[in-house]
Amino acid sequence: MKNKSDFIPSGGITSPGGFLAGAASAGIKYKNHPDLGILFSETACAAAAVFSTNKIKAAPVILSEKRLQDGKARAVVINSGCANSCTGGRGMKDAVAMAEMTAEHVGVAADDVLVASTGVIGTMLPMDSIGRGIAEIKLTTEGGHELARAIMTTDTVPKEVAVRADGFTIGGMAKGSGMIHPNLATMLCFLTTDANVEAGFLKEALKEAVDTSLNMVSIDGDDSTNDMVLIMANGKAGGESVIAGSRQAEVFQEALNKACIQLARALARDGEGATRLIEVNVKGAASLADARLAARTIVGSSLVKAAVHGSDPNWGRIIAAAGRSGAELEESKLYLEIGGICLVKGGAPVSYNKEKVVKHLDGDEVNIVLNLNMGNAGAMAWGCDLSEEYVTINSEYTT
Amino acid sequence: MKNKSDFIPSGGITSPGGFLAGAASAGIKYKNHPDLGILFSETACAAAAVFSTNKIKAAPVILSEKRLQDGKARAVVINSGCANSCTGGRGMKDAVAMAEMTAEHVGVAADDVLVASTGVIGTMLPMDSIGRGIAEIKLTTEGGHELARAIMTTDTVPKEVAVRADGFTIGGMAKGSGMIHPNLATMLCFLTTDANVEAGFLKEALKEAVDTSLNMVSIDGDDSTNDMVLIMANGKAGGESVIAGSRQAEVFQEALNKACIQLARALARDGEGATRLIEVNVKGAASLADARLAARTIVGSSLVKAAVHGSDPNWGRIIAAAGRSGAELEESKLYLEIGGICLVKGGAPVSYNKEKVVKHLDGDEVNIVLNLNMGNAGAMAWGCDLSEEYVTINSEYTT
Repeated sequence: MKNKSDFIPSGGITSPGGFLAGAASAGIKYKNHPDLGILFSETACAAAAVFSTNKIKAAPVILSEKRLQDGKARAVVINSGCANSCTGGRGMKDAVAMAEMTAEHVGVAADDVLVASTGVIGTMLPMDSIGRGIAEIKLTTEGGHELARAIMTTDTVPKEVAVRADGFTIGGMAKGSGMIHPNLATMLCFLTTDANVEAGFLKEALKEAVDTSLNMVSIDGDDSTNDMVLIMANGKAGGESVIAGSRQAEVFQEALNKACIQLARALARDGEGATRLIEVNVKGAASLADARLAARTIVGSSLVKAAVHGSDPNWGRIIAAAGRSGAELEESKLYLEIGGICLVKGGAPVSYNKEKVVKHLDGDEVNIVLNLNMGNAGAMAWGCDLSEEYVTINSEYTT
Repeated sequence: MKNKSDFIPSGGITSPGGFLAGAASAGIKYKNHPDLGILFSETACAAAAVFSTNKIKAAPVILSEKRLQDGKARAVVINSGCANSCTGGRGMKDAVAMAEMTAEHVGVAADDVLVASTGVIGTMLPMDSIGRGIAEIKLTTEGGHELARAIMTTDTVPKEVAVRADGFTIGGMAKGSGMIHPNLATMLCFLTTDANVEAGFLKEALKEAVDTSLNMVSIDGDDSTNDMVLIMANGKAGGESVIAGSRQAEVFQEALNKACIQLARALARDGEGATRLIEVNVKGAASLADARLAARTIVGSSLVKAAVHGSDPNWGRIIAAAGRSGAELEESKLYLEIGGICLVKGGAPVSYNKEKVVKHLDGDEVNIVLNLNMGNAGAMAWGCDLSEEYVTINSEYTT
């Protein structure tokens, strides 16, 4: 398939037409630190989202899921510093109030406003500060960059993307970190497009894009109490409605996958304490499910991550992670490459240039290819190395 | 149930009558470091084992599994420093040769000798050194302590146990480490008893004991390519054959569980870089499977482990781990205690003495109790905190 879309340099969530954003410093966790923001569409939007599957769901997740049942939204208010999770009835009241204040500030119905939160669990939102913060927010077409900063927690850089395809644009931003393993760190991702996408197809397309991108990062999007991936499509670019099975649906899906994979890689690269991006490419699996399982298990293995951190070509850890992943495999068929250099063929170690592999592991991005030689399915997964700093960050988070 | 068994201070694998052990320094990975040993029964034994369920199985695992099909064994030869895993046909030949040399040295049939290995994957055993090492081994009734040291890898202390019950003794030793999460580090555990246990019941009793002990440590016994838990019963203590359903079967099971839980706790406490033992007690689960799932997920959570390391009462991480575990639960029913102090009741945070909780977290052993209030099932799981040192150890393992 020929490349149908291109990245827009320095693009972001407000790159597509008709979207505005802005942020403020509400002092939720730290003083003078942007921690609150609004994403807004000037016109009506089809909207869809994928939420956390954790049985404990934060108030903003429950509220937004309910409000998205009609497939529409106009705005989302987002805060960092407090997850508003495990906060009972008062937490739900606070989420509803945040949406109301935002609705009033931007001039839409409260039902069209969604809420997303990330931060410490079990503490209440400082509602006075939130109210003052919302009132201060100025929405602009350049505000996406500011908003991408405001949603950061232990992230060291904002994650933004924009993709231009034939006739429409997709923008996005995400926050993540805490990449050691499918675990608790909240992943929030927001996507916008001016394509005229039908609500039903928008939901399908988002699910497909998330499964090949954000769900293949070693932090599993399903796991925190606050995870949310939201897409809003306002149709400003015009054209026929993009529906399932249409020619334009394929173009849209390709561009959306591209945007989401870019964000997934950015999330992995900025894992807590990360010094390298790890990309695992599993080929020759008997099924797509097997390929994903193996790729995710390898990139999520703490021992693989620690070996990469030490530039140690300890390939047995990769093979053993695949072995315990549950994917169908036979030892005698395994083929393994690190940085394009073959280390294992037919399940047996081959002699290789260790210096070259170590040099690759020392680099900024580590590529692992494992061919199971069982079938034709493949999948990619992304993660980061495990450094001493991860531990330091996570043993000092609330205090 | 009244306590039917007691620990024997400084006991070990050769505490039960009729068992001998010894070790040697074969220089497999390091010079002048015990790394090879033999456990031997003077008379015929019923034997049973639980092996790794990893799809990649090391040669010694494949060989021992085959040789145990008759429910009998007389000796096991064990080495550290090299896992003899992913070593193909030559690896299997080496495992067979190790057993043969041992059989000759101790004077039993090769079919009655099992093999266990732990260490780096993908390197071949130095068979000349192994041969010289085996020839040097002297078997004594005190040799259990020496053998418990020889099987260590990144373990900092040997793990030994002995339990005396009415009419028989159980001894045991284990090696583990790499406790961050269900992952690759090999867990080897050997148990002996002079009880006269019937082979069929021995297998059942071992499975039951492992499920409540070693499989509840945050390193999952199922995961490495080399995991093995072996029990040998030589009947030297005499008495009627212990069979399923008998009065003595209950006594034996209780004593075996006690020995295995003691080893499980010792393994968790000595996790790589560990500074504290974490014990998670899940109560009120709808089923035993749910209780185990929740307890294991909590104790295996990197964020919970890192919070404990920082003495940070970040209880939201515990609740969220339970939420994503898959166990049936309702937020509004959750009750959480750390060190006997209640932090969450009816799913909502309660005010608590933070200083006291931090003091408990600073201690040697951290106790977490989570009551799901959904039913009557309960389970315990053990793990350790996650320290910077874990990362250092695991990024420098092979090199």
